[in-house]
Amino acid sequence: MQYIRKHGGNLKEASEIYDFPVDKFLDFSANINPLGPPPIVYEIIKENLTEISRYPDSRNLELKKALAAHLHICQNNLILGNGASELIFLLVNCLRPTKVWIPNPTFGEYEVAARGVGAEIIRLPLGGENLNNFQLDQLESIKSGEMIFICNPNNPTGQLYNREFITSLIRFTEKKKAYLVIDESFLDFLVNNEELSWRNNICKHSHLIILYSLTKFFAIPGLRLGALLANEELISNLDKLRDPWNVNVFAQLAGVAALKDKNFIKESLKFFQEEKDFVYEKLIKIPGLHPFKPSANFIFIKLLTSITSTEICDILARQGILVRNCNSYPYLGEKYLRIAIKKREDNLKLIDSLKIIMAQEND
Amino acid sequence: MQYIRKHGGNLKEASEIYDFPVDKFLDFSANINPLGPPPIVYEIIKENLTEISRYPDSRNLELKKALAAHLHICQNNLILGNGASELIFLLVNCLRPTKVWIPNPTFGEYEVAARGVGAEIIRLPLGGENLNNFQLDQLESIKSGEMIFICNPNNPTGQLYNREFITSLIRFTEKKKAYLVIDESFLDFLVNNEELSWRNNICKHSHLIILYSLTKFFAIPGLRLGALLANEELISNLDKLRDPWNVNVFAQLAGVAALKDKNFIKESLKFFQEEKDFVYEKLIKIPGLHPFKPSANFIFIKLLTSITSTEICDILARQGILVRNCNSYPYLGEKYLRIAIKKREDNLKLIDSLKIIMAQEND
Repeated sequence: MQYIRKHGGNLKEASEIYDFPVDKFLDFSANINPLGPPPIVYEIIKENLTEISRYPDSRNLELKKALAAHLHICQNNLILGNGASELIFLLVNCLRPTKVWIPNPTFGEYEVAARGVGAEIIRLPLGGENLNNFQLDQLESIKSGEMIFICNPNNPTGQLYNREFITSLIRFTEKKKAYLVIDESFLDFLVNNEELSWRNNICKHSHLIILYSLTKFFAIPGLRLGALLANEELISNLDKLRDPWNVNVFAQLAGVAALKDKNFIKESLKFFQEEKDFVYEKLIKIPGLHPFKPSANFIFIKLLTSITSTEICDILARQGILVRNCNSYPYLGEKYLRIAIKKREDNLKLIDSLKIIMAQEND
Repeated sequence: MQYIRKHGGNLKEASEIYDFPVDKFLDFSANINPLGPPPIVYEIIKENLTEISRYPDSRNLELKKALAAHLHICQNNLILGNGASELIFLLVNCLRPTKVWIPNPTFGEYEVAARGVGAEIIRLPLGGENLNNFQLDQLESIKSGEMIFICNPNNPTGQLYNREFITSLIRFTEKKKAYLVIDESFLDFLVNNEELSWRNNICKHSHLIILYSLTKFFAIPGLRLGALLANEELISNLDKLRDPWNVNVFAQLAGVAALKDKNFIKESLKFFQEEKDFVYEKLIKIPGLHPFKPSANFIFIKLLTSITSTEICDILARQGILVRNCNSYPYLGEKYLRIAIKKREDNLKLIDSLKIIMAQEND
């Protein structure tokens, strides 16, 4: 089965289908920090409007310096991208794996990018109660130069992999000389993200790659900003294949400014720690819904009654509320939704709507 | 020889070397329209600041519609990019030519992108008085699936290829089933650009590809915006390999707004038609300089005395004036400069500086 290339945050498309103004939608379909962007980002853009007439610094020097300091890594272990998604494509184009292993359900662009370079795709079904594990022996036949993507915490399930499991996986792939890509795009939403990140391992391991995103936490998906961390040699090879002006001037300026706003970072972490549990506790009380305990800024929900995800999404959209229909992910059928954590007032609106829908369903 | 990856517009780097403020440089090293961007572009960014928190429309629908109408082509023959340079990389990644033929000197990223996919590079030296032709029989051994890039008008020489020559080249490559990429990134600066463009041929020819840029004419290199035009099948294949959010929200908004500003387009064309001849006539009177007759918004200059391009660039940079040292292009050695056409007052400053430098040289 070909991956269905569908994403959250398609407001324009929804606006056409539901004849509803783009800026009036309550959008729970894209996992963007509702507290952001940090106000300094707007200021910096307004102050630097005329920068659009200059080429971006093709070396991304200031932002690389700021991000390396923020992540406590060396600049030479870092490449910046027009969103993390650009870097997924760049990575597979550079390494050209013949086979790519992808635990699923997960973010769809790994598979799209891998197919694009003609790789054979092996989907590993995620199992267990929380859909957060697979068996290492399923990778037994993985060969040198092949690649595996894991998303941690995983999108759309919101689950973290077990730490010991990842330790074993790193050891295993390193031994096999297969590339292990850990996508930590949503890790910044966790209070203990530093301790959970595997980025400190990139220098020790030749086949470990970390994806990082500034788009979600700093709420700048419209500007695009992501990074890839790996050993120096791979970074240098990626750099040779990179469009030299891939990161636009505003993304560079916004990135530097946002990373400095420690207060925004602190407040956001505090907010999500509370709000994700609040929403989870409310959802768990709605008959017919099974929310998965969230780790980042979104919640994965299983539908336990006969209503389909398409039906719920449709009812909500007619009320101006967008959630992510997970029917485009492998294995999930019409039984799962993903919702972003937004501000309290908005979350309550969604919860109320879901209550009413499920009450009618259970009647 | 590996291509030296150097470009104009590296203000940050120059600022470090010459200890001079970035925004105080007179930058003739990047070929950007000095009349732009159209003021509406600033307005549209200021009015839509909060769009940075939304994902860009991954289909680029409005901008595709606007650009297709502007270019009188079908939307299905068009793909948008994060600058034309992204699309060069995307194209070679998609078609994976084993051999790429590049008349030189020309824009360096064709070769960088082609090397990136492991292609063998064949440089064809441009000849003739104006460095604007090569012999078709040099392509005799070109094979199906191989690729040739021509830049028309050519960067850095500013010369147009002969029309009959391109007609023959299209016929020849079509017969050989080799891809012909015509980069028209600077064509918009010519009054008769519509008549000179080959974009109307894309539907008739399966192996013809046109590159288009909005970055230079509309003066938005910091935002990044380019396009690639080709037959529907190739566009659809490229789309499958494209990062879905490759064009940021401001580039999309700015593109739509800029294309509507017909007055800006008309005034710019009028300005360049006069100013490029004005600068050319002044340069030709400076002993020791041989400017090539320009077609677009920049002038290629041969140095006829013993002074090197690096020496001139260095002297100018110490005065806060940046020009493009062409020593990174194959065949050109230390004997060529490229200067952008800027506003009259700025052009006169450069001309005066060049006069003084060359007078000392000729003393």
